[in-house]
Amino acid sequence: MSKTDGQLEQEILHSWEQNAEAWVGAVRAGAISSRQLVTDSAVLQAIVDCAPASVLDIGCGEGWLMRALQRHNIAASGIDGQPSLVRAAQLDGLQASLLSYQELLEQGPPQSAAMMVANFSLLGCESSGQVVAAAQRWLPAGGWLLIQTLHPLQVCGDLPYEDGWREGSWEGCGEGFVSPAPWYFRTLESWLALLQRHGLSLQKLMEPLHPQTRRPASLLLLARQQGRVQA
Amino acid sequence: MSKTDGQLEQEILHSWEQNAEAWVGAVRAGAISSRQLVTDSAVLQAIVDCAPASVLDIGCGEGWLMRALQRHNIAASGIDGQPSLVRAAQLDGLQASLLSYQELLEQGPPQSAAMMVANFSLLGCESSGQVVAAAQRWLPAGGWLLIQTLHPLQVCGDLPYEDGWREGSWEGCGEGFVSPAPWYFRTLESWLALLQRHGLSLQKLMEPLHPQTRRPASLLLLARQQGRVQA
Repeated sequence: MSKTDGQLEQEILHSWEQNAEAWVGAVRAGAISSRQLVTDSAVLQAIVDCAPASVLDIGCGEGWLMRALQRHNIAASGIDGQPSLVRAAQLDGLQASLLSYQELLEQGPPQSAAMMVANFSLLGCESSGQVVAAAQRWLPAGGWLLIQTLHPLQVCGDLPYEDGWREGSWEGCGEGFVSPAPWYFRTLESWLALLQRHGLSLQKLMEPLHPQTRRPASLLLLARQQGRVQA
Repeated sequence: MSKTDGQLEQEILHSWEQNAEAWVGAVRAGAISSRQLVTDSAVLQAIVDCAPASVLDIGCGEGWLMRALQRHNIAASGIDGQPSLVRAAQLDGLQASLLSYQELLEQGPPQSAAMMVANFSLLGCESSGQVVAAAQRWLPAGGWLLIQTLHPLQVCGDLPYEDGWREGSWEGCGEGFVSPAPWYFRTLESWLALLQRHGLSLQKLMEPLHPQTRRPASLLLLARQQGRVQA
């Protein structure tokens, strides 16, 4: 692709704008099988295991994770860059704010949180870096950043195992989706280096298995804001 | 397999006994292409980047890595559980000792070292745990443990992505090898959990690419002994 990073990041937002309605429908109908079978409970359990006082859901979409966290008595708020999705979450009584990842980095979260979670919502290159940088800047010392994403070695396909933009697809999401967005492929090494670069210390890496394929359905990275050195 | 862990660990040692001579020949002739193309220089570079004062090569075999480190002016000693390999290293003037991983854990290394390296030498289950535990016990605070191993997702094949013993193979090593040893497959999650359990903090994960396949030729884990909390 000869587009700039900025153009590709814009395409991601534009695609979500076009597909917001289909997405709300698919998530609320439980139509995405890998989420139902594995990855929804994987991210939820990883959060619950940390017992955070509060969670910021970054790229919260229509809000399923905030709802699930409330059922576990964990205070949850969310941000998303897509107005229709934020509206859908708000209509459901959830504390969702329209905020881009760059605004998150610059302004901080609308509500402070002991844990930030990005569940399949780090899709771009620079924008993913902004979220990790925001975690470094705005989490309290000892606060958590949890990322769930595609498992790099599992989704690499026949392309070289190297960072770079890739063509998207709505495969597995059901009907009604158009214009899939490009996404930025990161190797495992690159994900961990990104955390390291921002002073976040990896506490745990998880590879929940898909019950049918017996392969990792996703990758979860749990990192901790180490805080400044105490004098 | 219905053998016990202990029997399988013994089979590993027995296989190396049978294949020691072929191994010395293959390594010294540079007959193993993935080592020549990628993994030898990957482990060497990862060590040099840390600039350790001294290195203990765990499972040093006939000693190629110790020789390479000496050329970089890094003091290197080694241990191995296989007498013929230790003898081959000693005949080459290298500081190699016959020591099992269990003895390493219990007695500590013959020479103290700022960095411990296990280059494709963690083949069993319990014995790998002994090496990591030994690193925790015997490394100085701030000391390094570097592991190079098969990349789990790259070598999983059609079997479930789960920890367990697997059939071995000498594929890619050339001629003259017999009775391949079983080996213990660990997922990435399991490798990192093993380090974490022993108080070793992952500093870097590396996935050197094979220049032909453009896939990871191996996995390198660089971890650090964090030391006791200072009063």
